[in-house]
Amino acid sequence: MSSCLSLLLLLFPILGTLPTANSLPAFFPRAGYYQYLTKESKVINQKIPYKTHYFPQILDHFTFQPKSYEIFYQKYLINGQYWHRGAPIFVYTGNEGDIDWFAANTGFLLDIAPKFRALLVFIEHRFYGESLPFGKDSYNSAETLGYLNSQQALADFSVLIRSLKQNLSSEASPVVVFGGSYGGMLAAWFRLKYPHIAIGAVASSAPILQFDDITPRSSFYDAVSQDYKEASLNCYEVIKGSWTELEAFSAQKEGLHELSRTFRTCKDLRSLDFVWDWLWSAFVYTAMMNYPTEANFMMPLPAYPVKEMCKIIDGFPPGASKISRVFAAASLYYNYSHGEKCFELENEHDAHGLHGWNWQACTEMVMPMTCSKESMFPPSGFDYKEFSKGCKKKYGVMPRPHWITTEYGGKRIDQVLKRSGGNIIFSNGMQDPWSRGGVLKNISSSIIALVTDKGAHHVDFRSSMKDDPYWLRELRSQEVEIISKWIDEYYADLKLRVDNA
Amino acid sequence: MSSCLSLLLLLFPILGTLPTANSLPAFFPRAGYYQYLTKESKVINQKIPYKTHYFPQILDHFTFQPKSYEIFYQKYLINGQYWHRGAPIFVYTGNEGDIDWFAANTGFLLDIAPKFRALLVFIEHRFYGESLPFGKDSYNSAETLGYLNSQQALADFSVLIRSLKQNLSSEASPVVVFGGSYGGMLAAWFRLKYPHIAIGAVASSAPILQFDDITPRSSFYDAVSQDYKEASLNCYEVIKGSWTELEAFSAQKEGLHELSRTFRTCKDLRSLDFVWDWLWSAFVYTAMMNYPTEANFMMPLPAYPVKEMCKIIDGFPPGASKISRVFAAASLYYNYSHGEKCFELENEHDAHGLHGWNWQACTEMVMPMTCSKESMFPPSGFDYKEFSKGCKKKYGVMPRPHWITTEYGGKRIDQVLKRSGGNIIFSNGMQDPWSRGGVLKNISSSIIALVTDKGAHHVDFRSSMKDDPYWLRELRSQEVEIISKWIDEYYADLKLRVDNA
Repeated sequence: MSSCLSLLLLLFPILGTLPTANSLPAFFPRAGYYQYLTKESKVINQKIPYKTHYFPQILDHFTFQPKSYEIFYQKYLINGQYWHRGAPIFVYTGNEGDIDWFAANTGFLLDIAPKFRALLVFIEHRFYGESLPFGKDSYNSAETLGYLNSQQALADFSVLIRSLKQNLSSEASPVVVFGGSYGGMLAAWFRLKYPHIAIGAVASSAPILQFDDITPRSSFYDAVSQDYKEASLNCYEVIKGSWTELEAFSAQKEGLHELSRTFRTCKDLRSLDFVWDWLWSAFVYTAMMNYPTEANFMMPLPAYPVKEMCKIIDGFPPGASKISRVFAAASLYYNYSHGEKCFELENEHDAHGLHGWNWQACTEMVMPMTCSKESMFPPSGFDYKEFSKGCKKKYGVMPRPHWITTEYGGKRIDQVLKRSGGNIIFSNGMQDPWSRGGVLKNISSSIIALVTDKGAHHVDFRSSMKDDPYWLRELRSQEVEIISKWIDEYYADLKLRVDNA
Repeated sequence: MSSCLSLLLLLFPILGTLPTANSLPAFFPRAGYYQYLTKESKVINQKIPYKTHYFPQILDHFTFQPKSYEIFYQKYLINGQYWHRGAPIFVYTGNEGDIDWFAANTGFLLDIAPKFRALLVFIEHRFYGESLPFGKDSYNSAETLGYLNSQQALADFSVLIRSLKQNLSSEASPVVVFGGSYGGMLAAWFRLKYPHIAIGAVASSAPILQFDDITPRSSFYDAVSQDYKEASLNCYEVIKGSWTELEAFSAQKEGLHELSRTFRTCKDLRSLDFVWDWLWSAFVYTAMMNYPTEANFMMPLPAYPVKEMCKIIDGFPPGASKISRVFAAASLYYNYSHGEKCFELENEHDAHGLHGWNWQACTEMVMPMTCSKESMFPPSGFDYKEFSKGCKKKYGVMPRPHWITTEYGGKRIDQVLKRSGGNIIFSNGMQDPWSRGGVLKNISSSIIALVTDKGAHHVDFRSSMKDDPYWLRELRSQEVEIISKWIDEYYADLKLRVDNA
């Protein structure tokens, strides 16, 4: 039986929370649903015009034990082709995956670099990609994983950026940080906590209010459901009804075998849960990736894939089973390039090294989620006790469910940031279910919410395409305009300071 | 031979850096010069109208190892006699000593509490007073001391305040933080890093710019010297010349014995260094405590004690030795109450548990200081290599000299905080040598510098006295006015929010 509860343990979809079909106590999801990614993404990675560097980073910024001083090598990417000394530095605050992948999917920075003559820097998050403090032992236990958290990551960024500017003899360069999803949370928090390092932050699809019940627990799945409902009411209803049909197979003698045939699995299924997860992921990720043009982030997908999925579901002849319809729809997600002869539902491949998110979700990144009766998923609640027991069992430590709001705030954020902070863009597309946990209203004259009805998960950070719709071009140009203002102000402030000295 | 260089290793005068006379490599100072304090300060402590509480605090906020979750009991004091639910909470962010002592010397909060109907909370800093994470083993080694630093302390405050408000069912109460000296640095940083917890900060005599060469290294001792020079040029010259006279004793056969007589020591001196330290401390602390009325913070002292010391020095008959003059002047500091028959120069007593500062000064609180040729102390430089070698030898870890400015900023602070932050008062008195490392100019309409020519070390935080001069009353009333504005704005913002909801 699946449950929305498990979601909070999972990979942040794309960069976040993934659903699981495992019933408790097999509480922790397998690593993810991106097993068909490597072919395309490797091609992209080879094309990204960045040089790789490694920075000797300190293990623990916040204690001063001998061990704290140990060094690991943090990977970062640089493109300086448009830059000159003193010009701006744009830093992507890397999230929970290898940094090449984020660089490949954040073409926006390359697009705008010439205008600003900006240096581009992508910093990998500790414990992801190659930036492993304990090498292959990094994930061994809470003793090593203990150092994987957002505060240490922000301090890494601060130390690295400061050192980089010094090495470039360009300490007066203004730094703007950019991030999407969890990376967007980091970018916003970085501007709030380290305003002396970054003059501004562009936080795309950053659900910084997804914690501690600031945002209703059911909002994420309600938003996913909304996307499908908007595309077609029938489509929404088929998906909503498909779970019961799916479950009926478990009562049948040859149920799993039949399902294996229906889902064209390469091997006979051992459990219904795999199908459950496979479908769930397809629907959630497709909602997040509901981009207006063809794209390949998690998977290659057509423009507006939710609509395409619903077309498939609605296109079946009357009387077709819901299961056959949802399988066909999910195949769009898993097999848009038509390369797959069969599907390996039980074979996961963590192509972008995202599994560290499970640890983060079990310690500080606690985002309780439920499925309401109105969602297209089976209704379910959230049991904190079960959740924390699962975390303790898996990692040996308990979650700190109120820590994020204690450390970074979030409650009554409008009132707080009206009298502090400044220079942040929160961009959200309402197609993206994460948007519900984002900042959707302007807070002050310099803390701005840019909201688009049709946008999906950090669509603004993708490379501009000739077929981009007007609203997307407009969104990006608003961002450029605001960033320009920050930079102009910075240089004007600097000049005033020099003139007065 | 004494050296200004050693200063940065020492207790923050009063709450900070103490001089040492020990030549290298006997690099680390004895704990302090407050050995005659207990009698008076105990009397004061008994009078403070606070109830003592203990909060179960987490050991390490920034890692998630099993050990991080260990609990220690953090002491805090509460006075709720004027408070009602929903009214403001004034929190003193405790610094490097036992919290009772700071409460006893921060009468300002008690004076203004009725006007604001404020709850008063004094939180003890981890590793000081009774708030020892490892009990009597807390200072054993870097393994335990590693958790003593300002970031952990700020997180402690955040967690404790949030929990307290919840327990009081008063989550909408605005919190204003107050702190003096290092506590003032913590208050200012707390407002910058935790604006969601505190709506404003009053940072009195907080030298947040004493790091990383933002403030010239010689400024502290130049300022001390300036105080004496302003009182009397002759006085300054006598002190300046006394060090050579003192050193001449070391060449004499019976020099130490003679000095012991001159300095009325209880036991014969074993080293010139003790005299050196004893004098040095008297001059530095008296400059810091150059209050306009009688006071007893480190020591009981008359009003404007620098002037009184200089009167003593200037009042000797012509031909009197410089040494006899400076001894008499220093006796004002050590024996204003005339209770001492002899002086125990070699017998230290850390009455307020300040010794943890040595660790902090050796890890993150690196404040290089020198004595210029113009100061009244012997000229000396700062050798970082020697300094860090000394720290490594004593504690087993190296200093992180650029960490404070990386974590909290400081460089070009005016430019940075013009576009972020808000609601901070930086108050400084120019008689206080620490003022030179403080924020002395307004940064924005809500980040305000209040500077008084005659003020000494956080004089504004002392209880009001009937003899307080006009400028001091004025300073305090400006502070009250600004705090009122923050609180009014807060409630207005809150009302607007509720009205719009």
